Amino acid sequence: MMETLKINNSQKLQLKPLEVPNRLLLGPGPSNAHPAVLGAMNKPPVGHLDPAFLELMDEIQSLLRYVWQTENPLTIAVSGTGTAAMEATIANSVEPGDVVLVGVAGYFGNRLVDMAGRYGGDVRTITKPWGQVFTLQELQAALEVHRPAILALVHAETSTGARQPLEGVSELCREFGCLLLVDTVTSLGGVPIFIDQWGVDLAYSCSQKGLGCPPGASPFTMSQRAIEKLQQRSTKVENWYLDMLLLGKYWGSDRVYHHTAPINLYYALREALRLVAEEGIENSWQRHQENVEYLWESLESIGLSLHVEREFRLPTLTTVRIPASVDGKAFSRKLLDEYNIEIGNGLGELAGKVWRIGLMGYNSRKESVDQLVAAMREILPH
Amino acid sequence: MMETLKINNSQKLQLKPLEVPNRLLLGPGPSNAHPAVLGAMNKPPVGHLDPAFLELMDEIQSLLRYVWQTENPLTIAVSGTGTAAMEATIANSVEPGDVVLVGVAGYFGNRLVDMAGRYGGDVRTITKPWGQVFTLQELQAALEVHRPAILALVHAETSTGARQPLEGVSELCREFGCLLLVDTVTSLGGVPIFIDQWGVDLAYSCSQKGLGCPPGASPFTMSQRAIEKLQQRSTKVENWYLDMLLLGKYWGSDRVYHHTAPINLYYALREALRLVAEEGIENSWQRHQENVEYLWESLESIGLSLHVEREFRLPTLTTVRIPASVDGKAFSRKLLDEYNIEIGNGLGELAGKVWRIGLMGYNSRKESVDQLVAAMREILPH
Repeated sequence: MMETLKINNSQKLQLKPLEVPNRLLLGPGPSNAHPAVLGAMNKPPVGHLDPAFLELMDEIQSLLRYVWQTENPLTIAVSGTGTAAMEATIANSVEPGDVVLVGVAGYFGNRLVDMAGRYGGDVRTITKPWGQVFTLQELQAALEVHRPAILALVHAETSTGARQPLEGVSELCREFGCLLLVDTVTSLGGVPIFIDQWGVDLAYSCSQKGLGCPPGASPFTMSQRAIEKLQQRSTKVENWYLDMLLLGKYWGSDRVYHHTAPINLYYALREALRLVAEEGIENSWQRHQENVEYLWESLESIGLSLHVEREFRLPTLTTVRIPASVDGKAFSRKLLDEYNIEIGNGLGELAGKVWRIGLMGYNSRKESVDQLVAAMREILPH
Repeated sequence: MMETLKINNSQKLQLKPLEVPNRLLLGPGPSNAHPAVLGAMNKPPVGHLDPAFLELMDEIQSLLRYVWQTENPLTIAVSGTGTAAMEATIANSVEPGDVVLVGVAGYFGNRLVDMAGRYGGDVRTITKPWGQVFTLQELQAALEVHRPAILALVHAETSTGARQPLEGVSELCREFGCLLLVDTVTSLGGVPIFIDQWGVDLAYSCSQKGLGCPPGASPFTMSQRAIEKLQQRSTKVENWYLDMLLLGKYWGSDRVYHHTAPINLYYALREALRLVAEEGIENSWQRHQENVEYLWESLESIGLSLHVEREFRLPTLTTVRIPASVDGKAFSRKLLDEYNIEIGNGLGELAGKVWRIGLMGYNSRKESVDQLVAAMREILPH
């Protein structure tokens, strides 16, 4: 060796092999992965240009189109977590100076605002208290005022548990000549969504919620209208890793090297999607709905009340009001430490006011509800 | 269910559970993961704010500092593959108008040029034929001409197999008042590197090469000098997912939620780093050097010649000249299809001229060399 420098061992930890607790993950995500999905993830990696991997990429694309109900050719998984897929929709649609109208009724609406601003968007907002949703009339009025290039809405607001209805929104967007961008992080796989029939132009999601896969490879889809805007832009996308003009050449027939994909996560995602297709997407939606209704009844039976009006509640994530006599954070910590069950604390406007309970993907089962509610009943003051 | 829309089943593939070929990955990456690393990855996910996960994040930080030989507090893994970590260094250091001087002697130098331009950098280049490296005199002359805010160099050029010496470069950078940004994607874990003693300000790497882990969680480190530039910038980082001012609050003591980490990949990375520490980083470097020298001898013994001058050859990646009588792509495809061995084809200037052979991490073993060279001997024309 040429090097004669002295090795610094100050950060050289001596660790034992990894041990992790076995949690029931009923927070806002990640949720537990299906055992078959973990099994698939564990297969030995192949190369990112291996014919076997390219075939798997094609399978992922088809199955993502199926679960999203779209025929968009540019439907892929981004090599990062849901936030990276979110950023991919913004980076590939927002050009400097574009007016971007964001519906903000929770934490993730605010994140869209922050992101769109970083890409040079002239960001306007329409707001509602956290837990409520926008009516078509409210959206129409805001479109008339702001005349945006893009309307961004959160279909499933993970911070509030509210489901934003999307029927009729794209007709408004066509009328005002703007693209419709939708956050489906907490809806894909668990909540009815019809990208094509609802006229959504850009959508993103994650793997670790309704799809029951570990986090790290995140669904992205883009309509022909959105691709045309991308192709016509005069400047490069201000993000190399997420540039769909480059990524499209790797996922499309050109197979041009772009980046080394997280191979094993794609194995897992392919298996998770395969299981959803085996169940049938409409059956998966139905299962999420039935189990969450059982959760709602069970929570109410132990005296708890729910934050969102029933009509707009998500089947995947429920916000539960913390009783006045209870320290919410101490309660959720006790659930974790003593029962190995994770639920989420509130964020932003709802911090300290609600818990967030997820029943998503593999975890949307009656047994999850029974295990959680039994534990909550034990901890709650009597 | 409220939905009465008709389900489109046209993309609903009926697939069997995943089967993948068992490849020996001796290309430019990914390389095979250590079996213990795959085992760790397969443990059930916990939440990204679980105390058990936060402890694991601290362990990853310490061990990344150890393998990189740095005390930089902001040493983390980015939730994406190596290219995302590359983009993180650019996004957090380049401000619009900054002069960025990039040493280009291969594909990844060009990628740095493209990325830095997207973040508003005034990009200048210094070039060398692919496979060569820059001398201190050449770098000094370029610094004098361009007076950059940042000098970006590729320590281990994955497209050429050349190792850029870094001794003395930071002294030049101090003299000219610029930051030193270094690509260590194909060096970390396998090639001696001393971030602190060599005065590197920003560096990035990947998990799937010298560290022997699957791809998807990628090392990033940043010096105090680089953090000061970041803190003084007048505009937000033009990338939300990779903004170190936000990520630092998740990885640091604040533990503010930023994104859902790819939990299982962090399990894998922790285990991979643990194994490197168990071996000792200096022993890992020594092992890579010994095995690559055995590879070089073995390749020469079957009549092949190497592209890079011996002094500057990487111990992790070797470029081998394709004999005039051989169709390089058909040869590597035959290795893959008939021997389950992956090697890489040439990129850019070296397309059609070289193969790229990686001996990295777990795959840096004498047996890998023997298996490859026996197969190559069989396929090569006699």
